[in-house]
Amino acid sequence: MVNKNFGFGTQIRKSPYFDSTVKWGATGFSVYNHMYIPRDFGSPEKNFWNLIEKAILCDVAVERQVEITGPDAYKFIQLLTPRDLSKLAIGQCKYVLITNNDGGILNDPVLLRLAENHFWLSLADSDILLWAQGAALNSGLNVKITEPDVSPLQLQGPTSGEIMVKLFGENIKDLKYYWLREYNLDGIPLIVSRTGWSSELGYEIYLRDGSKGNELYEKIMEAGKEYGLQPGHTSSIRRIEGGMLSYHADADINTNPFELGLDRLVNLDSEINFIGKEALKKIKQQGIKRKQVGLVLDCEVLKGPNTTFWPVHKDGKEIGKITSAVYSPRLKKNIALAMINIDFSSIGNKFKVLAGEINISCTIVEKPFYDPKKKIASF
Amino acid sequence: MVNKNFGFGTQIRKSPYFDSTVKWGATGFSVYNHMYIPRDFGSPEKNFWNLIEKAILCDVAVERQVEITGPDAYKFIQLLTPRDLSKLAIGQCKYVLITNNDGGILNDPVLLRLAENHFWLSLADSDILLWAQGAALNSGLNVKITEPDVSPLQLQGPTSGEIMVKLFGENIKDLKYYWLREYNLDGIPLIVSRTGWSSELGYEIYLRDGSKGNELYEKIMEAGKEYGLQPGHTSSIRRIEGGMLSYHADADINTNPFELGLDRLVNLDSEINFIGKEALKKIKQQGIKRKQVGLVLDCEVLKGPNTTFWPVHKDGKEIGKITSAVYSPRLKKNIALAMINIDFSSIGNKFKVLAGEINISCTIVEKPFYDPKKKIASF
Repeated sequence: MVNKNFGFGTQIRKSPYFDSTVKWGATGFSVYNHMYIPRDFGSPEKNFWNLIEKAILCDVAVERQVEITGPDAYKFIQLLTPRDLSKLAIGQCKYVLITNNDGGILNDPVLLRLAENHFWLSLADSDILLWAQGAALNSGLNVKITEPDVSPLQLQGPTSGEIMVKLFGENIKDLKYYWLREYNLDGIPLIVSRTGWSSELGYEIYLRDGSKGNELYEKIMEAGKEYGLQPGHTSSIRRIEGGMLSYHADADINTNPFELGLDRLVNLDSEINFIGKEALKKIKQQGIKRKQVGLVLDCEVLKGPNTTFWPVHKDGKEIGKITSAVYSPRLKKNIALAMINIDFSSIGNKFKVLAGEINISCTIVEKPFYDPKKKIASF
Repeated sequence: MVNKNFGFGTQIRKSPYFDSTVKWGATGFSVYNHMYIPRDFGSPEKNFWNLIEKAILCDVAVERQVEITGPDAYKFIQLLTPRDLSKLAIGQCKYVLITNNDGGILNDPVLLRLAENHFWLSLADSDILLWAQGAALNSGLNVKITEPDVSPLQLQGPTSGEIMVKLFGENIKDLKYYWLREYNLDGIPLIVSRTGWSSELGYEIYLRDGSKGNELYEKIMEAGKEYGLQPGHTSSIRRIEGGMLSYHADADINTNPFELGLDRLVNLDSEINFIGKEALKKIKQQGIKRKQVGLVLDCEVLKGPNTTFWPVHKDGKEIGKITSAVYSPRLKKNIALAMINIDFSSIGNKFKVLAGEINISCTIVEKPFYDPKKKIASF
């Protein structure tokens, strides 16, 4: 899969960074939002250590942007999410959920406010472009909804701050967690935000000209040389340690925010109106039936993430499923996120997990598994 | 990529036929509608000959269904497509386009009418579930829109008819092109339609119980033994010969139906109301600026489909792009679908194609390249 012409026709798009990632050693690709994403540079464990000890550069062009502009853009973006956006400043970002009329989660993007009526939703893996265009149809709101030519990179890890200073100058240090700024790097138009998907210090660099992808990638790799920067990919190990969600794995259209403990992203008591408000009120009133928990699995070191949902059993009865599991070489534990029956969701509870033909004992523990207050990323 | 546990976590779903396809020799998978799809059983040319000489069984569980039910289901489904559905009988299927408010194509599914107010859209690669739920929000129509537990297989090729008789009995012979019927095969609940994506005689078999995927796959392979049935995958060679579209490659949100010559799927003069009607009227009035054409490329045998959009040049000026190209071992020609400036779209015109570093001469020819009246499939 690593020759320059691999692929199944043009049906799946290549990223503007594709050639650079292949050159720098990408050995496996997945598909996300109809595009190839590098997911393997040889060893996921090495990638994890690179991330937490120095820094990695990740091609996340697959995080497609939905751009919302027009005189009613603010009103419309508020309709799309249960999070109260009334205090979202220009230049600020927020992690939000997109819910449907039943309160089910359609995506968990980062929302960027570029101007009074100019927003980007930086997407997880689903066609929110279509959802938003559909929702706008009879809304009576004057908005324009498109996918712009924008392709993000993630620069993540403890030395990412120094690399950013080298690229953009000292003033980048003022950029606060979940804020954004516009830059131009030797003629390459960019938006930079202090966000990511690693729970480490990190930045997202949104390229606004797809023809300059490889040029940008090489420039950053060059600047990062002296700071130990390595080419990499978003780390399943680190994001599970951090209890971060992977859409379709840990959440889907049949998952509601309360099941994930994301009550802070649902402002039911505010005056705002949004799609799913009535349904979410009802769900909150009636109480949830399932809840996401963290588990430690008592078994041999897992060789990779689970590729199917492993059933969780209590006294021979299925009470839930493992959504994401991985071995953390730092914690020296097999850790997992699971969605289980609320009646069994207390810390310390023990279950059996059926991983293919293997029976594994597991115990509910606190999550996130590492740095629960996100101090590393948000300082 | 062929060990049973390959994958990047649970973020991408496995098909109910996954284990069987691996067992029967799938050597490469792509991702489509958030699921793995087998796209390689060793040799795409061998797969092509298997298809046109005997029959192949293809796992197309990725063709997810959007199910629309409720008292206003018929009214709503008509809103979603420019094709007049007033004569769509219960038990009938139609190839339709889904367009947005600008007349851009969001998908090109097969629509199945299972009952008066019970429809399935059998999808190409985009989240029409989200589009439809969004479009329903303020429509005032009472509908339920879900993704049911339905996973299609395609049984395609000249001997598929005999295999179907062996499985379902003589009466399957009455099933006409683009009609469907309900079956139960030894306790496995199914819908069967005479449709496909090969331009050959063929059937789609929609499994309605995901737990029985491998059982169904094995049953069909067993029945097909004496008729030369081989495990396979949808053939890019055959579908390009037949001028069939691959969404994202040959059409996308910025493509309108007229550019593809699909005027027959847009009923502007009918009384029906649908999303995009005003935009499409305007486009028709003003005339299109680009048009899809068929090309023959005068070069060495292509080793596989193009994996990027190759620019088409006339006198040094870019006038379009190749969307899908492949070598047809039957026609002994490199054939391609391209979207080019309308002023240059006449049969016989010659251009240059820039395929990476290679310059290729090409000529516009009639399309489809083979069996233009679709007599093989529709008899």
